[in-house]
Amino acid sequence: MKQLGFVLIFTLMTGLLNAQELMGFSEANSAKQLDWEKQFDVQLNAKNQDEWMQFLSSHPHHVGSPQDKTNAEYIANLFRSWGYQTEIASYFPLFPTPKTRLLELEGSKPFKAKLEEPTLKEDKTSGQKAEQLPTYNAYSADGDVTAELVFVNRGIPADYDELERMGVDVKGKIVIAKYGGSWRGIKPKVAYEHGAIGCLIYSDPADDGYAQGDVYPQGPFRPAQGAQRGSVMDMPVYPGDPLTPNVGATKDAKRLDRKDAVTIMKIPVLPISYEDALPFLQSLQGQVVPQSWRGALPITYHVGPSKDKVHLKLEFNWDQKQLYDVIARMPGSEVPDEWVIRGNHHDGWVNGAADPLSGLVAELEEARVVGELAKKGFRPRRTIIYCAWDGEEPALLGSTEWAEDHQKELTEKTVAYINSDGNGRGFIGASGSHTLETFFNEIADNVIDPETGASIKQRRYARTIVQAEPSNRSKLLEDKNIKLGALGSGSDYSPFLQHLGIASMNLGFGGEDPGGEYHSIYDSYDLFKRFKDSGFVYGVVLSKTAGRVVMRLANADVLPFDFKTFYKTLSDYVTEVKTLLDNTRTETDVQNKMIKEKLFDIAKDPKKISRSPQLKEDVPYLNFSDLDNSLVNLKAAAEEFKKMYKDGLQLPVAKQNELNDLLYKAERSLLDPNGLPRRPWYKHEIYAPGYYTGYGVKTLPGIREAIEQRNWKEAQQSTQILAKTIDSYSQQVQQAIDVVKKNGEKRSF
Amino acid sequence: MKQLGFVLIFTLMTGLLNAQELMGFSEANSAKQLDWEKQFDVQLNAKNQDEWMQFLSSHPHHVGSPQDKTNAEYIANLFRSWGYQTEIASYFPLFPTPKTRLLELEGSKPFKAKLEEPTLKEDKTSGQKAEQLPTYNAYSADGDVTAELVFVNRGIPADYDELERMGVDVKGKIVIAKYGGSWRGIKPKVAYEHGAIGCLIYSDPADDGYAQGDVYPQGPFRPAQGAQRGSVMDMPVYPGDPLTPNVGATKDAKRLDRKDAVTIMKIPVLPISYEDALPFLQSLQGQVVPQSWRGALPITYHVGPSKDKVHLKLEFNWDQKQLYDVIARMPGSEVPDEWVIRGNHHDGWVNGAADPLSGLVAELEEARVVGELAKKGFRPRRTIIYCAWDGEEPALLGSTEWAEDHQKELTEKTVAYINSDGNGRGFIGASGSHTLETFFNEIADNVIDPETGASIKQRRYARTIVQAEPSNRSKLLEDKNIKLGALGSGSDYSPFLQHLGIASMNLGFGGEDPGGEYHSIYDSYDLFKRFKDSGFVYGVVLSKTAGRVVMRLANADVLPFDFKTFYKTLSDYVTEVKTLLDNTRTETDVQNKMIKEKLFDIAKDPKKISRSPQLKEDVPYLNFSDLDNSLVNLKAAAEEFKKMYKDGLQLPVAKQNELNDLLYKAERSLLDPNGLPRRPWYKHEIYAPGYYTGYGVKTLPGIREAIEQRNWKEAQQSTQILAKTIDSYSQQVQQAIDVVKKNGEKRSF
Repeated sequence: MKQLGFVLIFTLMTGLLNAQELMGFSEANSAKQLDWEKQFDVQLNAKNQDEWMQFLSSHPHHVGSPQDKTNAEYIANLFRSWGYQTEIASYFPLFPTPKTRLLELEGSKPFKAKLEEPTLKEDKTSGQKAEQLPTYNAYSADGDVTAELVFVNRGIPADYDELERMGVDVKGKIVIAKYGGSWRGIKPKVAYEHGAIGCLIYSDPADDGYAQGDVYPQGPFRPAQGAQRGSVMDMPVYPGDPLTPNVGATKDAKRLDRKDAVTIMKIPVLPISYEDALPFLQSLQGQVVPQSWRGALPITYHVGPSKDKVHLKLEFNWDQKQLYDVIARMPGSEVPDEWVIRGNHHDGWVNGAADPLSGLVAELEEARVVGELAKKGFRPRRTIIYCAWDGEEPALLGSTEWAEDHQKELTEKTVAYINSDGNGRGFIGASGSHTLETFFNEIADNVIDPETGASIKQRRYARTIVQAEPSNRSKLLEDKNIKLGALGSGSDYSPFLQHLGIASMNLGFGGEDPGGEYHSIYDSYDLFKRFKDSGFVYGVVLSKTAGRVVMRLANADVLPFDFKTFYKTLSDYVTEVKTLLDNTRTETDVQNKMIKEKLFDIAKDPKKISRSPQLKEDVPYLNFSDLDNSLVNLKAAAEEFKKMYKDGLQLPVAKQNELNDLLYKAERSLLDPNGLPRRPWYKHEIYAPGYYTGYGVKTLPGIREAIEQRNWKEAQQSTQILAKTIDSYSQQVQQAIDVVKKNGEKRSF
Repeated sequence: MKQLGFVLIFTLMTGLLNAQELMGFSEANSAKQLDWEKQFDVQLNAKNQDEWMQFLSSHPHHVGSPQDKTNAEYIANLFRSWGYQTEIASYFPLFPTPKTRLLELEGSKPFKAKLEEPTLKEDKTSGQKAEQLPTYNAYSADGDVTAELVFVNRGIPADYDELERMGVDVKGKIVIAKYGGSWRGIKPKVAYEHGAIGCLIYSDPADDGYAQGDVYPQGPFRPAQGAQRGSVMDMPVYPGDPLTPNVGATKDAKRLDRKDAVTIMKIPVLPISYEDALPFLQSLQGQVVPQSWRGALPITYHVGPSKDKVHLKLEFNWDQKQLYDVIARMPGSEVPDEWVIRGNHHDGWVNGAADPLSGLVAELEEARVVGELAKKGFRPRRTIIYCAWDGEEPALLGSTEWAEDHQKELTEKTVAYINSDGNGRGFIGASGSHTLETFFNEIADNVIDPETGASIKQRRYARTIVQAEPSNRSKLLEDKNIKLGALGSGSDYSPFLQHLGIASMNLGFGGEDPGGEYHSIYDSYDLFKRFKDSGFVYGVVLSKTAGRVVMRLANADVLPFDFKTFYKTLSDYVTEVKTLLDNTRTETDVQNKMIKEKLFDIAKDPKKISRSPQLKEDVPYLNFSDLDNSLVNLKAAAEEFKKMYKDGLQLPVAKQNELNDLLYKAERSLLDPNGLPRRPWYKHEIYAPGYYTGYGVKTLPGIREAIEQRNWKEAQQSTQILAKTIDSYSQQVQQAIDVVKKNGEKRSF
């Protein structure tokens, strides 16, 4: 009890400290802001979130469905009723839907896959069969293929290396891969690169089914016939409409021919349930899979090829569909041309309660109360724009097309983009531009977890320590701050951050909201209420958290960017890629030595096929001097700016505006106008989704992926590009210093 | 090709070097010894091993079975026919066999476990139902209990800590544990310590079934109804007849009352198949198990308790049975009172083809050819004793009772004990006293793997590197020597090494002989021939390897003990226990800090039971100075002896005998006459089976287990005892130095 008392007092003290000095606010404005936030908190109402989710999830609401449009209009009307200038922005991307889906096993024990998620009496929307999109992977190719089957584990490049060692080739075969271990689109892409002619992706119960917990409807986990829909477009090359890269898919935009759209998958791909997968896996012969490849089905997993052939036939309607992005503005009272954008998508694969509505209703409630406060005199200095995106599920369509359509204005005006995409019970998850880390930690200190009474920051810190390996805990105890994750892809921040260089964040709670409903008909209101966030308690906490981010960014005197945190993180990334290069060199040396000593040949089982690896080219040393020097300069600038940051609060308003303009545009200077190698749409030099991981981020992607691909020349070039990028970023920080300094000199005269 | 050529030349060169200098042999005697070994190799015949295995495995041959006696007589006759002085030594231990076995699930869906391994047409001995011992755990208690069931993972102490955190108590319950993760006897022992009244142990298919590979008869892995018999006697306290600790179980030995025998389990215990286990696991309710506890059955694993009660009834015949140890001697020509003992057990749980006959037939073929060579003039200097033990499976009965019965003579005369226990395709596995490591590496250099042409040492080295984490390979490449494993328990070396202080080794090939036949009716000749070592090729390699160990030990001029390797290993162990203490201290400090900061309370899911750990006593610093000083002295003595080792070859025979006596008795000085805390039968200060791991070794057991049990006083006392033990060992080495030195002085005069 004594201890808990201490924690409470500490929390109160932290609160008091914040009351005096809110980052980016003068003392007077801090007090006002905190007062508004107090009012904000008390008005947030979980019941609204519940009601909106009920309505919005009452029917399937995927792109092109009647409910998709209905929902957009419903949302737009809500925004309007709260006083926002609201419009629905429409775009017209290619969005294929299935016409034929056939999967069968030939041979003596023929089997035809059901490809159907059953209606459950415990789930009232699960029977809306006529309205549901069937289980499929969007942007799969049309195809009618018959071939032997090969099991490729997760279907990532390393798995094919292992198959090669086992003497198994997928050329001319159909592959079956487990979901997980990469974004799903990587699996058919890599399969195609290796010569496969078709791809099945299934949810293994080890990852997503009974091994995780009781299955629906008894528990929230994926039942035997549940399957995961999802896009397989090659989004690591570019997201959005495959026919209109770089420009908005307006009605009359110039479009590529479908055959020239590189992001459409080249082979047919189909997601299946573990019940459907079982007979196919049982037909596999050949070697037993490596231990780490095993799933939780009650069989011996073999790599294949299969005894019998598999027939996969897929045909799609390659239609253009209309998107409905809802855009709601509250113009800024002082600097209306500085925009704080907040977004969450509204389209789902089916009824989409958890994904995306749980996040969307938190955004709506946040927007409602901001509207209420505005009526009572809260006038944000900057413009706030609330967005509800359409078409996120197929390919971040709504956000990407809008961002491409408005890129010039967005580049000029946007201070930051704050995203969410689903929410549930548990711990704050926060990723984003590391310039916002200090700012976000201040907010996480101020928001209280509703079930424990600790701050959301304390709670996440506690879990990080408790879940860590005992040997790592000591080090972790030294830093109570939340370290922001780096953004890869998988939601609507991508076009803002990685294409336009707008500082972005992605926020959401989770970790105590288990489930296997993802992209299935069971992602329903009924499941959500039972297992995810019954009372929308964490919905309200997300409103509190994201609302503070939006309101403080919109009202700050000096925008709360901290270049020192960014420097530290960047410096860690540089250390990482250097270590990666060194480790690659050591491992190459060791492996080459092992090959020369014939160790692989001597160690292998002579009765099994087990090909020894080939000698690899030695790993050269790269010249990191320019990069190291650029970091030295950035460090100096970042530290100097941090020291004088508070002086900015004393600047006259015009100077503050000049300063703020420099601050939020700093992120733009992290773009390389030429973009990343082989995917020029991605221009951010620090954060990108992995070319071979998809959602998973690759920080310093130019250097890191070149090293991973053993392209030393490109790694060196990317190092030089990054050094220049950092130099221009440091110059931007230097300009901000100069603005504060000049005024400081004036003041001291 | 060039590289392989190099390997061959290198092998030849190594051969030549050895030809000149075989450890412990003068140049002339080296050449003779190598010549005998050449003759030995060519006479080894795989077909004999095949024939003997066929006969010996033709019927179940457990303790007390007709075939057990038949086999002993058959083996004795073979030894006699090869010229050995052969006797059958009989002992009369307690050996319970089942009378009643009943296991059922009560409630609305009642289920009665089959407890029966089905006959397979592909396995011709699997149908010998009348002769088979049913599936059971020997030395389980009688019992008739009905209670709720709780799943305890592996059933080791750490699992109960986890259960306590989940708020689950096993008091008055029956527990179900997975095989693996500890020796089986630990599971009911720990369950009993926690208040459980019954224990089921099942083979989960994740560890031992379809997840490992195709099941029998398609592949060699454990089928759905296969179960693992085995002893649950508390052998970490003492092995052998529970009624006659420390003395031979002769007909008229003084016996304990059964109720006073501490090694008999206190609760009923039954092993079951995964098919039998499934309904019991499905009846479990409560929390879902931690991820690492999951098995491969197609269910969600829960910790329990079960919805319905479980009824377990076991009754045993508590009979005395006769053991038949076969002891075959070839008296030494020069020092007949120095004995080299080689053993492998002959009893099986059922037909026991792999376990133990695959090792036994290799020993027999080795003995046969040694006998042949003797007829041709090979007269080993020392006495060779070949043993075929009975009753190893229940509790190392045959070896323990014989060793206890003859302890005085064995202590005086035994140079070393060389054990094997099963053998198959693959890599040499070698554990034992580290004084023999250098000697064994020389042998491993000389024996060629039959499938790759590399030496067995090269092959094992190659696999060690290939299987290592890439980051560990560089270090491992630095040392091509085989590091002997330390001996815990699980086979017949225990009484020799750990009770009598006789330098011991355990040898066997494996790693390319997968299977799940262990202790089941499917451990048959049919399975062995298909999956284990079809042509008995590795049986012959074991004969070659162990034969060399025996013949070189029997013939060496100066016994090939290397105290420097022992010192190095011992020094590593001391570093390990110091590190263990330091890590325990750090982890305690960190965890106490976490408890004081309430991190466990804040991190946990408020809707789940999850008890936070309690504050632990701080870990003191211990005084290691005496131990460190004893190591300094040992190092000096070991290095000095190593330098002058070859001088020993120049000593007159009488002096050599004096030296050899000191050398082989050095291991005796590693015994503490008082034995280990709470288990005085185990007297070796360096190697012991773990009190809570069973088979798994605990090196420096006194110190290590005291630290693990947080008994700091005992840890300090054990440190002092070890220091004294090492001092007396160093004195023994010093005496050996003195013997060589004195003579050296004479020679130089």
